[in-house]
Amino acid sequence: MIPTITAFDRSPDGGKGLARDTRVRWAFEEVGQPYEVRPVSMQAMKEPAHLALHPFGQIPTYEEGDLVLFETGSIVLHIAQRHKGLLPDDGDARARAITWMFAAVNTVEPPILELTNARLLERDKPWNKERLPLVEDRVRERLGPLSDRLGNADWLDGAFSAGDLMMVSVLIRLKRSGIVDEYPNLSAYVARGEARPAYKRAYAAQAAAFKGDA
Amino acid sequence: MIPTITAFDRSPDGGKGLARDTRVRWAFEEVGQPYEVRPVSMQAMKEPAHLALHPFGQIPTYEEGDLVLFETGSIVLHIAQRHKGLLPDDGDARARAITWMFAAVNTVEPPILELTNARLLERDKPWNKERLPLVEDRVRERLGPLSDRLGNADWLDGAFSAGDLMMVSVLIRLKRSGIVDEYPNLSAYVARGEARPAYKRAYAAQAAAFKGDA
Repeated sequence: MIPTITAFDRSPDGGKGLARDTRVRWAFEEVGQPYEVRPVSMQAMKEPAHLALHPFGQIPTYEEGDLVLFETGSIVLHIAQRHKGLLPDDGDARARAITWMFAAVNTVEPPILELTNARLLERDKPWNKERLPLVEDRVRERLGPLSDRLGNADWLDGAFSAGDLMMVSVLIRLKRSGIVDEYPNLSAYVARGEARPAYKRAYAAQAAAFKGDA
Repeated sequence: MIPTITAFDRSPDGGKGLARDTRVRWAFEEVGQPYEVRPVSMQAMKEPAHLALHPFGQIPTYEEGDLVLFETGSIVLHIAQRHKGLLPDDGDARARAITWMFAAVNTVEPPILELTNARLLERDKPWNKERLPLVEDRVRERLGPLSDRLGNADWLDGAFSAGDLMMVSVLIRLKRSGIVDEYPNLSAYVARGEARPAYKRAYAAQAAAFKGDA
């Protein structure tokens, strides 16, 4: 059965790959699983039919027969557990890869979300200029240790895994800020992720869906 | 083999159960798995020996033979996958419970962390009084839909699961703010979690470790 995911019907970022369905498309492409996409409008996302799938009224969702999932981390893990290619076979290595998935969403992403809030939601607030450097430093408090741990390795723990997929996806959100570039090995890590054929296919598929939005 | 976790050697919150080892202790107690605790000082947490276990220099970590994990979400999932009691047997229900774990750490917790930053790190900033209500509203944007989804149910999806363990743990962080009490069903949900014998044992074990700190 081919799973169906939901995605924005119009791109909020002009197709820069930041919408969260990119993470799920990337996972599908890595494991070679075909998928279908049902576009949802911003308005429909807050209506009962979509809220039944996603209680927080967001995208993406994942539907496969009677199973409905939301949360990119959970969907990517579900795909990774059912197909070869995103998690090691060895039990310990598998647990470590999943640890990096949680590190991406619960340790590295929260200050990045805070920075996005500061940039977008508080852009016109009188405190924004003075406060922004504090929030950027909270991001650096995560990127510094991440950079130290990565060192000269290609990926966080052995071969590319769902942990790297999530971590690269989280770091891509920082692109326009320039903060990742302060850590050359992280910048190269993100570039390695984006250079993967599966990422390119995911990005192109999302961009194609948004064609004409700009 | 009995796993060893790390925890603060002194309580930063006077033993209120907010340190993240509570989540892991709770999971151990739910499944009946004995565990050992190695206390780590704030200083030692940033030194190479601990950074080798936890790249971000935090607690808890999880050690079992050669396996080292960090991130509470990942540790709780690891425990839940290896013991009965925290995840349903049915594959679809299991995937949905894991979805709630990710929803807890990646959708509900980030604005709560932002609120904690505002309360602690920006307490003395001139903008704090005006900005705090904005941040509180970001928390409500998550709690409202969560309350709607929970409705009159005891737990988020059938029987108590690792998803509830993580969600209740995240909501406990909000206790002093009073925001959870604006949603009576969430307030009752947290109380149900705290009333579980396994939670009480976890809380008591942590409090006992901190005895004399206050």
